[in-house]
Amino acid sequence: MYDIRGLNEECGIFGVWDHERASELTYIALHSLQHRGQEGAGIVCSNNEYLFGARGMGLLTEALTKDQLASLREFPHAIGHVRYATTGGSELSNVQPFLFKNHRGDLALAHNGNLVNAMSIREALEDDGAIFQTSSDTEVLAHLLRKNKSTDRKTRIKSALKQLKGAFAFVILDEDSLTIALDDHGVRPLMLGEIDGSYCVASETCAFTAIGAEYIRDIEPGELITLSEDGIDFDRYTDVEKPNMCSMEYIYFARADSEFRHTSTYTIRKELGRELAKEMPVEADIVIGVPDSSLAAAKGFSEESGIKQEQGLLKNRYVGRTFISPGQEARERAVRMKLSPVRDVVEGKRIIVIDDSIVRGTTSRFIVKALRKAGAKEVHMGVSSPPLKNPCFYGIDVSTHAEIIASQKSNEEIRREIDADSLTYLSVDAMHDVYHSYGSRGQCDACFTGNYPIEIIDQVLPQEKDLKTKGV
Amino acid sequence: MYDIRGLNEECGIFGVWDHERASELTYIALHSLQHRGQEGAGIVCSNNEYLFGARGMGLLTEALTKDQLASLREFPHAIGHVRYATTGGSELSNVQPFLFKNHRGDLALAHNGNLVNAMSIREALEDDGAIFQTSSDTEVLAHLLRKNKSTDRKTRIKSALKQLKGAFAFVILDEDSLTIALDDHGVRPLMLGEIDGSYCVASETCAFTAIGAEYIRDIEPGELITLSEDGIDFDRYTDVEKPNMCSMEYIYFARADSEFRHTSTYTIRKELGRELAKEMPVEADIVIGVPDSSLAAAKGFSEESGIKQEQGLLKNRYVGRTFISPGQEARERAVRMKLSPVRDVVEGKRIIVIDDSIVRGTTSRFIVKALRKAGAKEVHMGVSSPPLKNPCFYGIDVSTHAEIIASQKSNEEIRREIDADSLTYLSVDAMHDVYHSYGSRGQCDACFTGNYPIEIIDQVLPQEKDLKTKGV
Amino acid sequence: MYDIRGLNEECGIFGVWDHERASELTYIALHSLQHRGQEGAGIVCSNNEYLFGARGMGLLTEALTKDQLASLREFPHAIGHVRYATTGGSELSNVQPFLFKNHRGDLALAHNGNLVNAMSIREALEDDGAIFQTSSDTEVLAHLLRKNKSTDRKTRIKSALKQLKGAFAFVILDEDSLTIALDDHGVRPLMLGEIDGSYCVASETCAFTAIGAEYIRDIEPGELITLSEDGIDFDRYTDVEKPNMCSMEYIYFARADSEFRHTSTYTIRKELGRELAKEMPVEADIVIGVPDSSLAAAKGFSEESGIKQEQGLLKNRYVGRTFISPGQEARERAVRMKLSPVRDVVEGKRIIVIDDSIVRGTTSRFIVKALRKAGAKEVHMGVSSPPLKNPCFYGIDVSTHAEIIASQKSNEEIRREIDADSLTYLSVDAMHDVYHSYGSRGQCDACFTGNYPIEIIDQVLPQEKDLKTKGV
Amino acid sequence: MYDIRGLNEECGIFGVWDHERASELTYIALHSLQHRGQEGAGIVCSNNEYLFGARGMGLLTEALTKDQLASLREFPHAIGHVRYATTGGSELSNVQPFLFKNHRGDLALAHNGNLVNAMSIREALEDDGAIFQTSSDTEVLAHLLRKNKSTDRKTRIKSALKQLKGAFAFVILDEDSLTIALDDHGVRPLMLGEIDGSYCVASETCAFTAIGAEYIRDIEPGELITLSEDGIDFDRYTDVEKPNMCSMEYIYFARADSEFRHTSTYTIRKELGRELAKEMPVEADIVIGVPDSSLAAAKGFSEESGIKQEQGLLKNRYVGRTFISPGQEARERAVRMKLSPVRDVVEGKRIIVIDDSIVRGTTSRFIVKALRKAGAKEVHMGVSSPPLKNPCFYGIDVSTHAEIIASQKSNEEIRREIDADSLTYLSVDAMHDVYHSYGSRGQCDACFTGNYPIEIIDQVLPQEKDLKTKGV
Repeated sequence: MYDIRGLNEECGIFGVWDHERASELTYIALHSLQHRGQEGAGIVCSNNEYLFGARGMGLLTEALTKDQLASLREFPHAIGHVRYATTGGSELSNVQPFLFKNHRGDLALAHNGNLVNAMSIREALEDDGAIFQTSSDTEVLAHLLRKNKSTDRKTRIKSALKQLKGAFAFVILDEDSLTIALDDHGVRPLMLGEIDGSYCVASETCAFTAIGAEYIRDIEPGELITLSEDGIDFDRYTDVEKPNMCSMEYIYFARADSEFRHTSTYTIRKELGRELAKEMPVEADIVIGVPDSSLAAAKGFSEESGIKQEQGLLKNRYVGRTFISPGQEARERAVRMKLSPVRDVVEGKRIIVIDDSIVRGTTSRFIVKALRKAGAKEVHMGVSSPPLKNPCFYGIDVSTHAEIIASQKSNEEIRREIDADSLTYLSVDAMHDVYHSYGSRGQCDACFTGNYPIEIIDQVLPQEKDLKTKGV
Repeated sequence: MYDIRGLNEECGIFGVWDHERASELTYIALHSLQHRGQEGAGIVCSNNEYLFGARGMGLLTEALTKDQLASLREFPHAIGHVRYATTGGSELSNVQPFLFKNHRGDLALAHNGNLVNAMSIREALEDDGAIFQTSSDTEVLAHLLRKNKSTDRKTRIKSALKQLKGAFAFVILDEDSLTIALDDHGVRPLMLGEIDGSYCVASETCAFTAIGAEYIRDIEPGELITLSEDGIDFDRYTDVEKPNMCSMEYIYFARADSEFRHTSTYTIRKELGRELAKEMPVEADIVIGVPDSSLAAAKGFSEESGIKQEQGLLKNRYVGRTFISPGQEARERAVRMKLSPVRDVVEGKRIIVIDDSIVRGTTSRFIVKALRKAGAKEVHMGVSSPPLKNPCFYGIDVSTHAEIIASQKSNEEIRREIDADSLTYLSVDAMHDVYHSYGSRGQCDACFTGNYPIEIIDQVLPQEKDLKTKGV
Repeated sequence: MYDIRGLNEECGIFGVWDHERASELTYIALHSLQHRGQEGAGIVCSNNEYLFGARGMGLLTEALTKDQLASLREFPHAIGHVRYATTGGSELSNVQPFLFKNHRGDLALAHNGNLVNAMSIREALEDDGAIFQTSSDTEVLAHLLRKNKSTDRKTRIKSALKQLKGAFAFVILDEDSLTIALDDHGVRPLMLGEIDGSYCVASETCAFTAIGAEYIRDIEPGELITLSEDGIDFDRYTDVEKPNMCSMEYIYFARADSEFRHTSTYTIRKELGRELAKEMPVEADIVIGVPDSSLAAAKGFSEESGIKQEQGLLKNRYVGRTFISPGQEARERAVRMKLSPVRDVVEGKRIIVIDDSIVRGTTSRFIVKALRKAGAKEVHMGVSSPPLKNPCFYGIDVSTHAEIIASQKSNEEIRREIDADSLTYLSVDAMHDVYHSYGSRGQCDACFTGNYPIEIIDQVLPQEKDLKTKGV
Repeated sequence: MYDIRGLNEECGIFGVWDHERASELTYIALHSLQHRGQEGAGIVCSNNEYLFGARGMGLLTEALTKDQLASLREFPHAIGHVRYATTGGSELSNVQPFLFKNHRGDLALAHNGNLVNAMSIREALEDDGAIFQTSSDTEVLAHLLRKNKSTDRKTRIKSALKQLKGAFAFVILDEDSLTIALDDHGVRPLMLGEIDGSYCVASETCAFTAIGAEYIRDIEPGELITLSEDGIDFDRYTDVEKPNMCSMEYIYFARADSEFRHTSTYTIRKELGRELAKEMPVEADIVIGVPDSSLAAAKGFSEESGIKQEQGLLKNRYVGRTFISPGQEARERAVRMKLSPVRDVVEGKRIIVIDDSIVRGTTSRFIVKALRKAGAKEVHMGVSSPPLKNPCFYGIDVSTHAEIIASQKSNEEIRREIDADSLTYLSVDAMHDVYHSYGSRGQCDACFTGNYPIEIIDQVLPQEKDLKTKGV
């Protein structure tokens, strides 16, 4: 898929303990989390005796075959993972969950996030003789767990997790337990649910809706939850707790029906749109949201401003790798195949277009041009988040500095480049106000402000790691 | 793809004459027409000496390889086709355009529609020794053209077209001309455009937007247009003209940005929604459109009724064949993986759900149930078209009578089956009023009324034909 | 597969009537005929009501899936076909059997051979309105059968066959009969067998061995045999009979265990080797046959000359398309990956190498070079057939004149080019003597002598036909 | 492929140092070693800075794509591996060479053989925190190398190798050296060659013939050879040397043109056939070898006994997975599709059939039956090796005890089961005499005698290991 945005979530995870349809629920849940990762998918199950699983490349429906799913049917415990699409070559060995076989017991891991000291730990372990097979930072946890000599599982896990810095939501499966852990900043979302009396865990609540589970609550930073035949055990791996949930989850990544602290991102995005309307006093005839992720913000903008919302831009549902001769117009043509204006809606109108973020500016430039060509009299661009300026080290594949337009140019320069009549971003303060009003205990805004809440120890972006650590 | 709707357009066509990027334009145009058919796609080109082409199964991006596209690059004339997905086994031999090689000259055909006397003609031709290779009615035209002994191309084409009954939009390519023909009822849409001084033709105007062409006008019933080195020739193959454009194109099939007589279906659907609001005086807190095709109607309903529209239902963008254990709930589960309610939007609300049509009722039943589970106090169903009761013989794969819920049950029975608090369909008169107000010269409403404007000679539904005529 | 030889059989056919395992027998039989064609394979069956079949590209085991085979299980009558590999692009539409559906009845055809007036007939039929879908000459017969108005099947078939010139072995299946026809020269082999009281027909008797059938007799030139519920009907479509069986079937194509007039080609090839020994009085230490097809001739040579035969050359069983950088040595490298000398067998020896034919000379040149490198003192080349000089128009894909070394060069020139110490071909007379001694009633030797027994009407080689007649 | 024999070699390896076509030579060499493994193949290269490679499932020609090969073109050092086909599910993660990335340097391994203490070492390493990713015993060496703290490479390698028990031929590649090691019993063959002034190493000399290299000598048990920019370094990792080359390499596995101590297995097999003739004084008309591996032994038998050898059995070159309905005759049918008698050669004859080994007896039973059906008067079975009775722990996938016919039954019982007129195996002594006469310094005969030269520490057959150690 021609990725115009340059923003990719790294993963989605799910787990369920003690349910007779464990693998099927996991499959359905992963399907609902597919927007968090399209490179690969996998499921690992336990039957209290050993672990068994399957994984594959591509969308869930391609990654796992009917026969593979059938082979998992009898297992009562399961974890699953969907993985994001890298731009370059990707490989099966990096698809999760990872399953580690050992003569003393099996272990499977699925991870959402990014560790910022994985390289340092890895090098120390390698110097001690450890062999890593993947280029994934997730493997570090497995080694730390195996190196620990404690006979108590929870002690081993706590000790290992304490060594990790960065963003992580983990589900860890062994023969007789499922462990759920969230880093002490709680950068990535992780939700607890219940179905037919069994507990489940997911990156987003939309997975609960898909399988028919109840959404209980958000898992808190630093929590360590263990599911086993002894029931559920709530604990913490650390006393530290510095809530810093990723702002981009609210703004862009999470599905609009997914909830954080029992409010849908649809509602939050509408509110961001409302706030933007207050900060963007432009006169216009209609408001248009860029489909699909910005429709809610446009709705809020419309309600606040009283300017009518219309579907002035449409998204082609059929995408996929097209083979058009490259050249100077190739990128713009790719956007044109994805978005089209509705002429009689926009003709002769003064238009406010709401987008939830601007990464490279390519899409914005095309939208303004297309709307003008379709007859728009004015095109004002409103962005329901602050200017995106910095790369993310906590699990999102933002393009590098050089590609992020707002890290290179001023607002006015961007406005000119995208040829809008005006350009308004939401302020950082207004954004935080919205989050707080919906119960957020603290948000990471590093990509907007450069204030990284977790020290970046290894100074390496996810996409650079591969070169150093990839096997065959 | 698990087809819940049971409504499938049969095809989309495109053609362009004398453009240096003919095959690339065709490729992009077909991409924008992909919603009209996902079973297969093909392109045939002419270089004034011979015809050459490629076709394949699946979505356009799967059907044609990069190498195949490259091999078509130098040809200045092209036609293309996307074909709909049958439920059962499909096959390459039925993917269009058909290319017929002959020692006196080549011929390629692409067809949107369905002929109602194809079997009769075919049997007569077979009795005279003709051999048919496909189960497609389109092949009949090729035989009629070849049988005709006239040395004048246009004479041959007119004579052949006059023998055909039914719905057809044809593009016909030979070495040195591209012929465009629309049946005398004009059941299927066909649009004329212009790009860089060259003419092009497409099933919908969204193809023009995608390639950057100007939309000139709708082709009229009975028209016969020839493009050649002599320029464009406007003619008619028949004096008869009984306009009967398919109503379902307006309601459901055409992309929302596609225009008919220079009005987008988005605007028309909004108007259908407005009319429905007048006929459905229900009190409610919010209006929700079923994404994506019913959002416009919901918008119109909201504007007319003054009831606020919300995105209370979301559609999962990732579908594909899933492998869930079959059983009594399988179908419902499939819908649940496609549509989800936004809880905090619907909770405690009296809701009007707008859908553009009801075929089997499965989706409606799920929607009502899901909204109630999410906390809706009332769920009223409004349908922005009349009750769908009859199969189509003119090019749409409606399920058979037995599967169409409204052909079997009364309004009240349907309401009870889908468990809505009320159910209102748009009246046939109101529907026609909307069409006429936007310049329609006559609409086919046979699927609603049973008044078939073209006599059904062969009494055979498209899906039954295969069994009788399919080769290896 | 990198084809070094440049000699390809065009096809193998099989048919069986009224056997409960008809499709399975056909599958096994085609597997044993795989050496006659590797491009594609297909099976069409009848259940007395309609025909049904499957076909695909590649080797039999790739061409037909397990599900496809299962779907044919209940049909009691079947015909099958394996098709040869063209050098360029091949396509499914040319894979046989061809199945023609018609409202008056179905018809399937499988053909081995090549018609020399197919283009002429085709053009005449096209002028009369017929449409051809394949570039195969086989399709001509279907059209002739359909054009004929006689109500008697056998009359229609006889009349159609009489219009054909060239080499053909046909099996023709309709709902209630299986017809077997061989051209009046009997160029291609066709054998009659019996299994469990049912009749079967095959290109070679090895198919009978594979399925456990009895080999009854060779079908004679001009014969027309019909199998139906009335039993077997022996007839002729013509009174003419000019036996001219292809010599290359004996020399190279047929499997060594296949029999002609109840003598295996193994025995005949041994005899050709014996005759060559008489005509090649070279002193040597060992005789080596080029594996696999020339081992029998080498055996005969050894027995006649008294010189010990050794396996001095080995063939690598694993071939397939390799990706070696092209260049001047690429072709030689390809042979080297296929054939290796056994050093301690050939070192210090005077060697006679027996090959059954020389087409381009590439293989011979490599063999001599490799044997010398392995230490051979002398290398004499004996060919158990006359010099191959002329292309075949009757069903074999010999390379064109320019590529056939013996059509361009004298014996001495060839000897020098392949760097052998001597080069001896079998004489044409000796070859014919061998055939006659084993009951042959006449052999085509056109590729050696240029005496074409059937007039070449269309003057077109099979490989050229495609360009003129290929559809999408 | 339907494996009738139940004997599978585990692997073939190759390496070349400092050659401008290193990866291409490796590709060609692996192609010639394909008979040693068909499950997967891979190549890893070094450019003195880092290692890079590619591997895949299936035959070499399927496993590596053209693009992958091209990406390896510039690397001057390479090792490669072909892997045997397991009966059950196989997986990419077990395909070699294994490539281990590490921040201090890369490492690649390819292995032929089987370690008998791999599980013990693995468990000890796991108890120390190591994580294994494959179910292959080969990975143990990588861990041992990484755990060792010595800064001298050769010291590390010697120390690691000394801990291994069992059969191993290793090629080990790092950035600036290629190490070659053979276990102190020399169970698996390993050969040293030279091409264009560069050294190469291969499992068999046929690889040298294929690439045009000179065969220098057999690598001796316990040798440790290092190639680097300092040239070649000959050393030993141990003083122990107990030559015990696998007898089955001579009898069955190695290609007939491959040489051991400068004698081809063709010559050795002929000699085994000669010895068998001395021990099997049966009167007969012809001798037939089972193609292809037993033709040499039959040749020797014929020369010694004076009984004429004929090609009375033919092998179908086209195999692959066929879809025949299973059932009682399925296995026999599979053999019948592979082997056919030549009727007129065997009819009325007293026949001696020479096979090189009998595993389950299925093939022998079919051969006798088929020859009798084709008219043989008597069928005597001669086996050019002793009765195969015991499983192999050193790298060959012999079926388990229960399946090996000679471990369950007496000679007479086997004769009756295969319905031969007589059955004679070669004696163990005669076999050893042949080997010694050709320079063998000691042969493992455990599969015949049960005298295992290397203690079986883990008591686990290769096929059982997977269950305990396989990841996703």
